[in-house]
Amino acid sequence: MDATAADALRAAQAVDGGRLWQRLQDLAQYGATSAGGVCRLALSAEEIGARRQIIDWAQADGLAVGADAAGNLFVELKGEDPTLPPVLTGSHIDSQPSGGRFDGAYGVMAGLEALAATARAGVRPPRSLVLAAWMNEEASRFSPGMMGSKAFTGEWPLDAIRQVTDADGVSVGAALQAVQDAESDVPERPVGFPVAAFVEAHIEQAPMLDRAGIPIGVVTGIQGTSRYRVTVCGRAGHAGTVPQEERSDAMMAAARIIAGLDREAKAIPGLMLTVGMMRLQPNAPSVIPREAYFSVDVRHVDDAALQAIDDRIAAVVAAEAGPCSVHVDRIAHAPNIHFPPAMRARIAAAAQALGEDALELPSAAGHDARHLNSVCPTGMIFIPCRDGISHAEEEYSRPEDVTAGARVLAHVLVGLAQDAPSGAA
Amino acid sequence: MDATAADALRAAQAVDGGRLWQRLQDLAQYGATSAGGVCRLALSAEEIGARRQIIDWAQADGLAVGADAAGNLFVELKGEDPTLPPVLTGSHIDSQPSGGRFDGAYGVMAGLEALAATARAGVRPPRSLVLAAWMNEEASRFSPGMMGSKAFTGEWPLDAIRQVTDADGVSVGAALQAVQDAESDVPERPVGFPVAAFVEAHIEQAPMLDRAGIPIGVVTGIQGTSRYRVTVCGRAGHAGTVPQEERSDAMMAAARIIAGLDREAKAIPGLMLTVGMMRLQPNAPSVIPREAYFSVDVRHVDDAALQAIDDRIAAVVAAEAGPCSVHVDRIAHAPNIHFPPAMRARIAAAAQALGEDALELPSAAGHDARHLNSVCPTGMIFIPCRDGISHAEEEYSRPEDVTAGARVLAHVLVGLAQDAPSGAA
Repeated sequence: MDATAADALRAAQAVDGGRLWQRLQDLAQYGATSAGGVCRLALSAEEIGARRQIIDWAQADGLAVGADAAGNLFVELKGEDPTLPPVLTGSHIDSQPSGGRFDGAYGVMAGLEALAATARAGVRPPRSLVLAAWMNEEASRFSPGMMGSKAFTGEWPLDAIRQVTDADGVSVGAALQAVQDAESDVPERPVGFPVAAFVEAHIEQAPMLDRAGIPIGVVTGIQGTSRYRVTVCGRAGHAGTVPQEERSDAMMAAARIIAGLDREAKAIPGLMLTVGMMRLQPNAPSVIPREAYFSVDVRHVDDAALQAIDDRIAAVVAAEAGPCSVHVDRIAHAPNIHFPPAMRARIAAAAQALGEDALELPSAAGHDARHLNSVCPTGMIFIPCRDGISHAEEEYSRPEDVTAGARVLAHVLVGLAQDAPSGAA
Repeated sequence: MDATAADALRAAQAVDGGRLWQRLQDLAQYGATSAGGVCRLALSAEEIGARRQIIDWAQADGLAVGADAAGNLFVELKGEDPTLPPVLTGSHIDSQPSGGRFDGAYGVMAGLEALAATARAGVRPPRSLVLAAWMNEEASRFSPGMMGSKAFTGEWPLDAIRQVTDADGVSVGAALQAVQDAESDVPERPVGFPVAAFVEAHIEQAPMLDRAGIPIGVVTGIQGTSRYRVTVCGRAGHAGTVPQEERSDAMMAAARIIAGLDREAKAIPGLMLTVGMMRLQPNAPSVIPREAYFSVDVRHVDDAALQAIDDRIAAVVAAEAGPCSVHVDRIAHAPNIHFPPAMRARIAAAAQALGEDALELPSAAGHDARHLNSVCPTGMIFIPCRDGISHAEEEYSRPEDVTAGARVLAHVLVGLAQDAPSGAA
């Protein structure tokens, strides 16, 4: 075994699975729901509380903290050569409104434990190891999501991100100010800096690993996705006085369109189509709705199939709108991506060195790793979640898988920090 | 002309149309929306403000005020014989979330002007004239509506009404307390008292009078209505990882059901069917909805057709629910009612005495008069609204029609207060 491999193994073996598990449960108290899940929306008071907890843990572990103007929180284990771009890991701690304890939080807490374990093992590689908790991955408060990683990579200018508002009209800019006010003691980092490589640990959110009984997933890439907002405009009126044939009922048109999309989704193999959000105006039982506003989320492993859905949506709208006018806005489109084979090989080798079974598999869900992949070699490590359930309060991963994933992560990070190609950033 | 007819005519002629119009516009400032409409939800701060304005106007006009524990506000012009049950008029001042300036408010302000005009004319009939502003007619905050008139008539016990909560979990009981705290200077009246007759003035909310160019509608009765709440239960999951065929998607099931109801509504002549309210859980773009909750409002002039819709809804649900479970709750059912011919004749005669054209027509919308009709002879006076539009910010009635309706109302009220059958209550 060479020196790098020995260091990586020592760091991995120093991972304290019990402490990691406990911290994951403690973090879940920030935004805890009565059903055992988490509601920790991006830049909310709950998330600010969770960030402070992470800052406290990191400082107790002897690690340096920082944050950028985009609301990305960083924890750093300094390397021997500060002129080298660091190796990055991380995920996000914002959640869906009724989300679970592991989605996002796992990658952040596994990363924190990997850095702490590396330090405890006395391993000090040339490159720094930096953990990132990316701002607003989930898009459940501010849409579209992955704002922090997009700002970091330069894909979406922070000035534009700051203008986005939530359902109450609160802007990202105002919400970021609240975070910064609460963290005036945290040193500022620039938005975006050179990075040697990025590795994100995450629960799978699909049932392949759980069904196969395999603890480690080597992620091959991320499924393509398109997101739409559809606005159906009708005319308000009294529910008891406007004859049915004279109505422009936005709810009825929306129902016909969504039922039509349901038929399309079932007819196209492999397509996943979700209408997860709807708002009616004025949303009163005895008023004909004047407006229906809803989301459409579409995913497919084939980019051509994903592109083709644009036309299918337009056709359904044309067929079902009736007297209402309908506006379809594609707010995000992300094609399928594939992680570099060298990164996949590193993760598979780390799992093998630690005696963990691993499986290559794609990610059906989107992740911040999609965006980091455009600026540096990127990879992802999955662990199983029960029945593949996520974005739900009953989301669960087993302690032994939580530990295994963090060990593989620590191994990969130390390896990259020792010998990532110097021009990788 | 006999003495009663002369008094009624004097009271009607004392109605100050300009003052009534101005007060209607002033009242619309409580909950004014930027588009010129009104958002004055039941028992809200905006409604409390409007109530105080009415109390101030009534007292300035020399009228007595009172309120009951159900949140009904009363204004009284004392009659000569306080042992006789009074003649009641009134409507409501709560509005839809994006309502207009006339729905409800017109009947209250026309009633206030009728009482004030009667007093100004020096007419003092044996029976008192009492104006009521009924609590929560609209059902847009607390559902079902017409709570105040149902409590007054004993149809729904106040204790049960107080338990109803709004979307934020605030109970009617708590909201009533806020009203009572703001009105500690207002004498209390009992919930329900003997009444000789009830007459409600209202905008038509349908286009018949407006199209015919006739200022006064003599309302024959109120269309039957049924109201349902439908809860569709599915299973939450990640929009990108759960294959379409494995989903229990509450939104998709709801869309298929509502589209099915849309087809039913078009197939049954005369049926009006509205899905005005929908809430998704968790209502996030990348989460498969675990629950969809929506209202169904059904109206028909034929009671048999109205009853039959129960079975049609059940059939649509059975056909379209797919893997989701669906619960249909009929929360209200009100059959068609017909106002007494003698009350209709009084209104028609008053219009004729004042030289106003009048038309007999049914009410497509529900009103508090439905409930008063079960305890005393009841009638309704309609005035036109532009294009029949109501429950919308662009709702509008012309000043001359506003005046004509108030004059007919004053005429009818004084006539009833003079010679309503003594056993009418």
